[in-house]
Amino acid sequence: MNLIVDIGNTSVKMAVFQGNSLQEKWVFPLSDFFKIFQEILNQYPEIGASILSSVVNSVSEEKKLLQKHTKLVELTPILSFPFKNKYATPSSLGKDRIALVAAATAQFPTKNTLVIDAGTCVTYDFKNAKEEYLGGAISPGLEMRFKALHKFTAKLPLLKPEGKFELTGNSTETSIVSGVINGLLLEIDGTIAAYATEYEDLTIILTGGDTQFLSMRLKNGIFANSNFLLEGLNYILEFNKTQ
Amino acid sequence: MNLIVDIGNTSVKMAVFQGNSLQEKWVFPLSDFFKIFQEILNQYPEIGASILSSVVNSVSEEKKLLQKHTKLVELTPILSFPFKNKYATPSSLGKDRIALVAAATAQFPTKNTLVIDAGTCVTYDFKNAKEEYLGGAISPGLEMRFKALHKFTAKLPLLKPEGKFELTGNSTETSIVSGVINGLLLEIDGTIAAYATEYEDLTIILTGGDTQFLSMRLKNGIFANSNFLLEGLNYILEFNKTQ
Repeated sequence: MNLIVDIGNTSVKMAVFQGNSLQEKWVFPLSDFFKIFQEILNQYPEIGASILSSVVNSVSEEKKLLQKHTKLVELTPILSFPFKNKYATPSSLGKDRIALVAAATAQFPTKNTLVIDAGTCVTYDFKNAKEEYLGGAISPGLEMRFKALHKFTAKLPLLKPEGKFELTGNSTETSIVSGVINGLLLEIDGTIAAYATEYEDLTIILTGGDTQFLSMRLKNGIFANSNFLLEGLNYILEFNKTQ
Repeated sequence: MNLIVDIGNTSVKMAVFQGNSLQEKWVFPLSDFFKIFQEILNQYPEIGASILSSVVNSVSEEKKLLQKHTKLVELTPILSFPFKNKYATPSSLGKDRIALVAAATAQFPTKNTLVIDAGTCVTYDFKNAKEEYLGGAISPGLEMRFKALHKFTAKLPLLKPEGKFELTGNSTETSIVSGVINGLLLEIDGTIAAYATEYEDLTIILTGGDTQFLSMRLKNGIFANSNFLLEGLNYILEFNKTQ
């Protein structure tokens, strides 16, 4: 049984996998780490290995605890990965993007696959049918676009996504909602179309915090999977734990 | 002869029009207002009327000087406009957007017209063949998207638009350039396509600071006109100065 630990800037995600199957997941602030970890160990005593992906540097206590109770693999660019990293600067590839490409390789082998992670940023990551990771793109996420319009202008208000919106907004508020949501949907649909033109038989995964909001509004057929990153970390752990 | 004065947050634009024809324009910081204004008066003593559009509130000295030397019309939502404002909240419609729609009405009468102003924000404004302004959309501008990625994340660098970019970036820098520029181009092309589907015989104007960078990269046929806003202010002045 595997324990997946993903420490981000604002919260920690943990998940327990049996083989390739996610059993349970937890999202909580870093301050609750020791309490939740103990509860998980009590509940799943069969956990043997763990993987830690952290964007926070000061997690040495958490790491020690993981090492004490499990065989720990720490995600760094020098691990072995089930894909060939053709990034010009492999060591600068973000941990999230490594995990997403690992999941794409494991779940869609020999398929041209585009992974779209719609969170704080929107990241696009492409691996081809030969399991080569070629790179992708990064643009502002949904909430970031609303924040930017407020932060970088004198007069525009701070708004949030709304379920209902028109092409033509007829007030400042509805104009912003239209511009931000339509803009992001057009960007995602257009990017998918551009890859589909260049690469045949394209598989598209949508993941990240805005998956639900966006997936029902996109024109293209996509696989929506909120756990794709955790699944990718589990594959990397499986790939490295016996080495 | 008309003097157009557009006071924005970071700079002042002035232009002299003979009828509908722009003779000369100036861009300078507000602190140079009195010096430049005097030079313009010396060079163009035929100036009879002026229009002031200001997003800055503390310009009473500048206003007094314009009133002393010209017949001044100040742009406010209560002026007469050559279009019918169907905005739900007409008094909240930005001065820039009023001027752009005035220009669209004057230059493309009886045409469905979409004006795209690509500056700090990207604004979309649509007036139909019956000279009704219906509203539009607002999204983050090109530079704002780069600034947001840097400001609202811990690790991404601050970048600027580059002439050359790929669909698939293979480093953090080229991924950001790809995501931001392709994203905005897809948004603009997609928005044009959505309006063209809904409104027949659509005319499209592109204006604002990023006109040159964007116009050569868009798929759709557009009229690029960097002076569209100034031309709109001139039309509003013509429309109001005899009243």
